[in-house]
Parts: sequence; C-alpha cells; structure tokens
Amino acid sequence: MTAATTVYDRDLPKTPANFLPLTPLTFLDRAAATFPARLAVVHGDRRFTYAEFDARRRRLGSALKAHGIAAGDTVSILCPNTPPMLEAHYGVPMTGGVINAINYRLSAQEIAFILDHGEAKIFIVDSEFGALARAALGQCKAKPLVIGIDDPEHEGGEVIGEIEYEAFIAKGDAAYAGEPIADEWNAIALNYTSGTTGNPKGVVFHHRGAYLAAIGNVVTAGMAANPAYLWTLPMFHCNGWCYTWAISTVAGTHVCLRKTEAARIYDAIAKHGVTHMCGAPVVMNMLVNATEAQKAAKGDRSVEFYTAAAPPPAAVLQKMEAAGFRVTHIYGLTETYGPSVINDWNEDWDALDAAERARLKARQGVKYQVLEDLAVLDPETMQPVPKDGEAMGEVFFRGNIVMKGYLKNPTATEAAFKDGWFHSGDLGVWDADGYIRLKDRSKDIIISGGENISSIEVEDVLYRHPAVFEAAVVGRPDEQWGEVAIAFVTLKPGGEASEQELIEFVRSEIARYKAPKKIVFGDLPKTSTGKVQKFKLRDQARPIGI
Amino acid sequence: MTAATTVYDRDLPKTPANFLPLTPLTFLDRAAATFPARLAVVHGDRRFTYAEFDARRRRLGSALKAHGIAAGDTVSILCPNTPPMLEAHYGVPMTGGVINAINYRLSAQEIAFILDHGEAKIFIVDSEFGALARAALGQCKAKPLVIGIDDPEHEGGEVIGEIEYEAFIAKGDAAYAGEPIADEWNAIALNYTSGTTGNPKGVVFHHRGAYLAAIGNVVTAGMAANPAYLWTLPMFHCNGWCYTWAISTVAGTHVCLRKTEAARIYDAIAKHGVTHMCGAPVVMNMLVNATEAQKAAKGDRSVEFYTAAAPPPAAVLQKMEAAGFRVTHIYGLTETYGPSVINDWNEDWDALDAAERARLKARQGVKYQVLEDLAVLDPETMQPVPKDGEAMGEVFFRGNIVMKGYLKNPTATEAAFKDGWFHSGDLGVWDADGYIRLKDRSKDIIISGGENISSIEVEDVLYRHPAVFEAAVVGRPDEQWGEVAIAFVTLKPGGEASEQELIEFVRSEIARYKAPKKIVFGDLPKTSTGKVQKFKLRDQARPIGI
Repeated sequence: MTAATTVYDRDLPKTPANFLPLTPLTFLDRAAATFPARLAVVHGDRRFTYAEFDARRRRLGSALKAHGIAAGDTVSILCPNTPPMLEAHYGVPMTGGVINAINYRLSAQEIAFILDHGEAKIFIVDSEFGALARAALGQCKAKPLVIGIDDPEHEGGEVIGEIEYEAFIAKGDAAYAGEPIADEWNAIALNYTSGTTGNPKGVVFHHRGAYLAAIGNVVTAGMAANPAYLWTLPMFHCNGWCYTWAISTVAGTHVCLRKTEAARIYDAIAKHGVTHMCGAPVVMNMLVNATEAQKAAKGDRSVEFYTAAAPPPAAVLQKMEAAGFRVTHIYGLTETYGPSVINDWNEDWDALDAAERARLKARQGVKYQVLEDLAVLDPETMQPVPKDGEAMGEVFFRGNIVMKGYLKNPTATEAAFKDGWFHSGDLGVWDADGYIRLKDRSKDIIISGGENISSIEVEDVLYRHPAVFEAAVVGRPDEQWGEVAIAFVTLKPGGEASEQELIEFVRSEIARYKAPKKIVFGDLPKTSTGKVQKFKLRDQARPIGI
Repeated sequence: MTAATTVYDRDLPKTPANFLPLTPLTFLDRAAATFPARLAVVHGDRRFTYAEFDARRRRLGSALKAHGIAAGDTVSILCPNTPPMLEAHYGVPMTGGVINAINYRLSAQEIAFILDHGEAKIFIVDSEFGALARAALGQCKAKPLVIGIDDPEHEGGEVIGEIEYEAFIAKGDAAYAGEPIADEWNAIALNYTSGTTGNPKGVVFHHRGAYLAAIGNVVTAGMAANPAYLWTLPMFHCNGWCYTWAISTVAGTHVCLRKTEAARIYDAIAKHGVTHMCGAPVVMNMLVNATEAQKAAKGDRSVEFYTAAAPPPAAVLQKMEAAGFRVTHIYGLTETYGPSVINDWNEDWDALDAAERARLKARQGVKYQVLEDLAVLDPETMQPVPKDGEAMGEVFFRGNIVMKGYLKNPTATEAAFKDGWFHSGDLGVWDADGYIRLKDRSKDIIISGGENISSIEVEDVLYRHPAVFEAAVVGRPDEQWGEVAIAFVTLKPGGEASEQELIEFVRSEIARYKAPKKIVFGDLPKTSTGKVQKFKLRDQARPIGI
C-alpha cells in the first residue's frame, strides 16, 4: 500500500514546535535544570552536583568547538570510569561530535588502528594510559590534538599531550548551549567491537538509538527516580551499556570507580548507598568471593545487579542472592547498544527451588520494550524455529536500538542487515514461553562424534563444583571425534580439585560425551569486558600440526 | 550549518533492520508475548489475561479491516472505561485507523459535529449512551457503521446499531498481525477539545508521540513492572492521558470502572491491589469525603495518585496523604498528549510543614523527560520572563509530545505553532528553581480596580474553609471596578456557611480586594474531565444588559 493522502496527512507537517530530534542530551538538560543541587558525580573525594556536572560538560563542549570539533568529528577517549569520561558523553555530542571511547586493555597497535580508522580529531587520555596512548600515537597516521587527564585519584602514570584536561575545560564556556542536532539519525558514538580476530569493526550509534536505549534501561529496570549507580561496568563498553545517559534521565548519582575490586565496590556501596550496578560474571565472582570483612560493609542493603556476557551460573546466583544482590540477566551486543534483551522475571517463578530458578534465570529472555523485534530464525530460510526449547537457530534483532551500521564498512553493514534483520551470529533456542536461550556463539558449539556439545552447558556444570572459580570450554580438533571438549579452569584460592575429579564431576551431571577430555588449570584470558577470549583458548588447545 | 556529509553519513542508511516507526502498539505485542497468563483487564466479574486481551484487540482490528477501515480512517467510540474502549486503543490503530474517543457528557449536537468533522467511518457505542448516540446520528451527515456494546455490567440503556460488539469481534481473526505503520508521523488518535465556546477543535496525535507519551508516563512515575491501574480517569480524555498505552508497557492490570464513585473506587483498590490511579481534583474530593466505612476497605495500602486540571488544594492534599494516597501534581493539555509537566518532588521538601509542602505541590512543575522544552515567555517578545515567581508570562511547549496539529484547521494549527512553540494560552510564572506555577487561563484573571486577581488564589482560600466542598471564582463586569470577583460554592453535605461568613473568611486570609463580592451556592457545571466550566459561570454572573 502506498502512503495515500488522507485527511490526517493534510496541513499537518512537522514544525519546530512539534518535531525535535530525539537525543539523550535532553535528559541531562532536564536533570540539571530540575535538580541542580543533587549529587550527580562522586569520584574519590570529589563531588559534583548536577549543576556542576552540567557546567563541566558545557565547558568541555565549547572548548572542543573552539578547537574545531563539529558535526561528524570523532573525539576519542582512553579513560577509566572517572568524571572526564562521563563529561565526554555529553560534551562531545553537544558539539555534533562523535564520542569514541576506547578499550584501554587493547594493545597500542589496536588503538592505533582505531585512531586511524575512526579519524580521531582529538584524543583525551588519562595518565594511567599515557604510555599506552603514546605508543599508539607512534604507530598511527592520525595526528589528533592530545589532551591529558591528571586525575588526583591516580598516582603515577604519565600525563601526555598538548594540554591538561582541567586547563582545557577551564577555557570553555559553562553556559554553552551546544549545536542543534540536525537529525536524530546523526551519529553520537563510535564503539569498536573487541575480542575476535582481524581488524575490529566500528559500530556507529545515533542520537535516536541512544535516547531509546537510555530510556529503555530505565523502563526495563523499573528504575525509580534518583538511583545511586556504581560504575563497575567500563564506560568504554557500549557507552556503559548506555547507562551513561540512562542515569541522568532519572537524575541519579554516578559513583565512579577507577578499578573494579571487591574492597572498593563494597566500600562504595556502603558509603554512597548504591542501588544499581552492572557487570560481567567476573564482577559477581569477585563479589561473592570477597572476604567476610569486605562484605560486612554492605549490611542489609539490597542492590540491583544487571549482568550480561554469559549466563550467571547457578552457584554464583545463589551466593549473590544470599549476599543481598538481586541479579537480573540481560543480553545484547555492541550492535544493539548493549543490552536489549532481558530475562524479565515472572513472579510465578519465585516459588520454584533455587536450581530451577537459576535455570530459568540463565536464559537470555525477551526483548526490551524499546526493541521492536527479537527472533530465533533458521538462517537459511529466515523462518522462526519452533518454540520447543530444542530447535537451534540464529538470534536476530530488528528495531530502533540496532546500530546505524559499521563505519566505512558497507560490506559488513549489508551482511549484518541482510533480509531486514540484524544477524547476531549467536545461536540459541526458543523456549515454549517465548524466552530465548543462547546455546553458544556458532563457533563455540563443539561438534563431537556428530553430537553438538554446548560449551555453556559444560561450563555451567563446572561452576557448580565447589573448588571452581572460573571455567571455559572450547573444542579441539580430533581425528577420531571431529572435535573434543577441553576445559580451562581457574580454581578458587585454597580450592583443590584434580583433573580427573572435575571430569568425573561433569560426567556425573550430564551426558558423558559432553565431559571435557582434558582440564587445563590457570588464569583465563579475557577481553576488557570480562568475556573469556575463547579464540585464544582454542589456539592453546589446538594440537601441534593442526 | 548545513548537513555536510561526514564519514558518518556515508553508507549508513536507514534499513528495515534498524529503523522502525515508533508506535505504542509494540508495547502490547511485548506484554502479550512475555506475560500471556498475567491479568490484563478486570471488569466486574470478567477477567482477561494478556493473551486474551491481545486476541480480542486483534479480532477487533481484523473485523474493522474487513469492514473497510484502513490508514487514516476514523473510528469513533462512545464508551465508558470498559474493555471495548481499551481494545479499541489497539484494535483501531493496528489497522492504520485513527481512534476518536468521544466525551459522553457532550450533547447530541456536539457529538454530531464531531462525527461529521472527524469523518467517522465506524461508530462504536455503549448501551448506556445508545439514546444519545442515536440522537447525534440523527443530526449529522456522516453515516458510519454503528456497532453497539451490550455490556453485562450495565443494566438498561439501548444497544443500537447494525451489529453487537461481541458478535462483531467474534468474526475477527485472533492472529491478525495488523497493517505495517508506514510512518511514525501517521495519526493514531483524534481528541476533540472541550469546554469552550465555538466548535471544538480536533487534536491529532501520531504514533511517535503516543509511544513517547506512554513511555514518558512510566519513566516520570518511576513505575515498576506490573502495576494495578484503576481507571478513575475517563479514557476519552487524551486517551486516558496515554495510560491506555503506558500500562501495557509495563504489563500492568487495567482495572475498569464504569462509574467514578467513592464506594466503587475503595472496593476496587481493596479487591485488585490497585497501585496507581489518575484523576481531577473532583476524584480526590470524592475520596477524602467518603464514609469511614467506605475508606476502611483500603487498609494501609499506599496508592499513587496523579492529578491534574487544577492545583490540589492544601486541605485536600493533607487529607489524601492521611488516607494513604501519594499525590503527584501533573499538568498538560490535550495538545500535549495530556500530562507533559510534573511537580517532580524534591526529597528536601519532605521536612517542610504541611502548608509549605502543599504550596510547593500546587505548582505545575517541570517538563517530562520526553518533552524537549517548556518555558514561560512574554508572548509579545517570545523572551523568557525572569525566574522570580512574579513576572507573568504565557506557558509554551516544544517537543515530540506536542500534537500533530488540529484536524482540517490550518489556521488554528499555524496560530498554535507560531514562532516554533506551542502556545498553551495558560498564564503563569517561573519560580527561581525553574518550576512553573500557573496563575490562570488568561480569561480567568480578574482585573479589578487595576489589580489582577487570580481566581485560583481565591479558590484556594475558599477550599480551606471547613464547610466548602468545591469552589470556583470568575469575574463579573462592574461599572466601578471594571470587574469584580464572584464565587460559586458547593458546600459539603451537612456543611454550613453563610455568604457573609465566606467573604469574611477570604478577607481574613488574603488582600481584601481579592475577596468575592458575592457567593452563589449550588452545584458547579463541569466538563467531562472534571474541569469547572467557567464560561458558564461567567454567563451566570453577568448582570442583565451587559
């Protein structure tokens, strides 16, 4: 059907009074105007009210503009979860510029690639990563203006660049109004995907999507006004899953955290009345394995904890609950602005036993309200798989919190959006109740003797063993079986378990063919976001000569 | 600045995977898919789960389509707060049609005007208003297909039309997917403004605005999942302030209510665990003046109450708090999808005394998160008035929850949107903290002896008198003073106060010149939304010959 003209299409055009670009910048405008005296940012001994936070990001914006930043210019930043990182999430986009928060666990070479590919005009660098940034700048063609951050909360490191951050923003105008955002489809952020082989892809977010993702987090979390949010999740990860913008929507307090350590976390929870936090399972492990003295600071306070990246193992969930954290499992990709799927809890499940609750909570769940479509489809036919919890398909997304595309990579963008859906590359099943359950990244399925082994399933069993701190399972090529499962395990401090004991433990819990053929003990290589780098483990597992 | 092409504009077009029209229809899709067994609608002894509610609106949609309803076609409905009214809020827009919920307190002549002006193709009529609808149909040129609702919860009345509602939807398809919404700017609803002289204007909402208004209600209310919402506010009023769509966003229960009466309300609160409700001050009056036996049913339960249309008087607020209702004052117009301004409460004010808290709560407040701009401007210069609580200006709105415009009325639309702002016609001041405070509709300011008298201020004093149930103050032309104030007062059952006593009471509280010259006792004429029809009172107050 064409858009035939009806009576409702006549004389009712968009006007400046009734059509404005959606942008998350308006959320901070409102918070600062409404609650100027409310605590916006805490960082060590520093405190910024909403009026101060607002003034600082306006100073930053106007200083960036004075240095030539305009619509579509990239400003890169290499910085832990500190005030300048937050300020950049508003100061950069208000000029029309695009914030590119870089993962500081990358190598100099990888960062050099990003500065070049993203065409960084300005590069803001925290002193902790001064040497890393300098090395990256030595390897790239881009010649951004470099601004160094000298954070009083950090000792050592190297403040690099032409000007120090505080001096830079001091020259800015605290009343700077920002440039009008010409179109809500304009880019707001550039986030490079991490962790796989080859050059990373630059995922572009637009203002419309960032607005909806921010408000989607608030609605999905049922977040009341004025939460205290602890920054255990790196802000360079999908702009802190868009919580950088969500927390301002509800005029909450951003509690900064340079380092994610159990003692600092419990201390911050106690001191600042933290209500919400996010993190990968590694953060939960840290919390439940903290010393009793560290845990004591928290008291009876209940804290909402949003976790993604891997399903929370049952044992960890139980300990988190016992420690007063309400865990919600969410799921998403950089390409979907971070979380866009939630394990929306059904109160009927409260009555189930702990194991069954954990099994249900390990599922990824259903779409956010602001995501239009989520489906498990057969990637050949693009037809939905049966909702039987068995039929495997690929997880597809469609909607307004799907990225604008990959920067300067039309081939990858077209492939990602083929057939009108975003192809996640994740494999999963659809349970009868419409909740999706990831089985694995396609490359993480181990096919052994013609049977599929889900590495997640095997890991889940290993986590139930009392001595296991972390576990990851990958496939190793095998002449007889095609592939066999190999487990990499980190034991708890003081925990003891032999290879044979763990293999027997798995065999006693699930089908024997799923048990790993070998256990390798040691630390697991991880991405900055807490995802185990399975490609490294696969390399390690690979027998000589294959 | 023009939209120069940057690297972020290249090869990153909108695609079906990452750009979909915003529409509140997706919220019900999600609720029904995620929580099919949850209670969606309660009406007397009837209960619909989300799966059933969803199936019924799909049946309605497909039956409407079979009867020719397509994009831009108007479906009018004259119905109290019952399931068919809710179903129409989804069933009509999913065909591309536009829902026109008509105020059933209008006259047949007024309804006839609306049916003609809105070009109604189908007219759904509850039996309670069968005779009214038949009279209206007799006076209009439009010849819509008429569908009569025979609600088992209502006795008497007249089921009119070609087919009964249940029979109509029984022929529909419960799996109907709906038509794609071609553009989020397409109309979703048509709401006629009420209460003033001349023909009413048809305010058009679009899908984008309805989506944002719905989600804005959720965020502004900090509403957690699964509220129980009692329908004390008519759904014909700005689509129930867009709560028709907001409640489905959080998979809440719609508790229907044919008649807003104290006994029914308290009964519903107790029976269905009501958590949220909305209403004009008249509903609050009803609640606080209920019998103790009626109130007892509620118990200790705390209920969120959103009120608009007039600032809640201090005395009523105190009684509401004592009765366990947390009152939030909101403000908006039909042209802003209902509420778009909120008295966002600052916890610092909790420590103030009751009178001061009431004074602060009587202010209209600050913009919703989803409204881009709210300002008090000098309508001549369009410059902001000083934020001093004194300088009077007109209240202006700008943003995505400002209407699409007035149907078939380009002159009124252009005037409303002149200079890039929506002109509300409401007069107010800006307090130092950025909260706006309405002084009056421009025509409700009484100018007496060169002094402005705010009718709201005088009414507020009258409400503080223990015998006063309701009060409204208007100006009467006067040879000596230009205008003088006249008060219309309804006393409480058993309340006693003489004219002279009330005039003295006002004089003892505020400047003598503000006291009414005359008190008229009796019922107040009201619009269906609980607004006092001051134009009727002004007519009544006018001396013969002027």
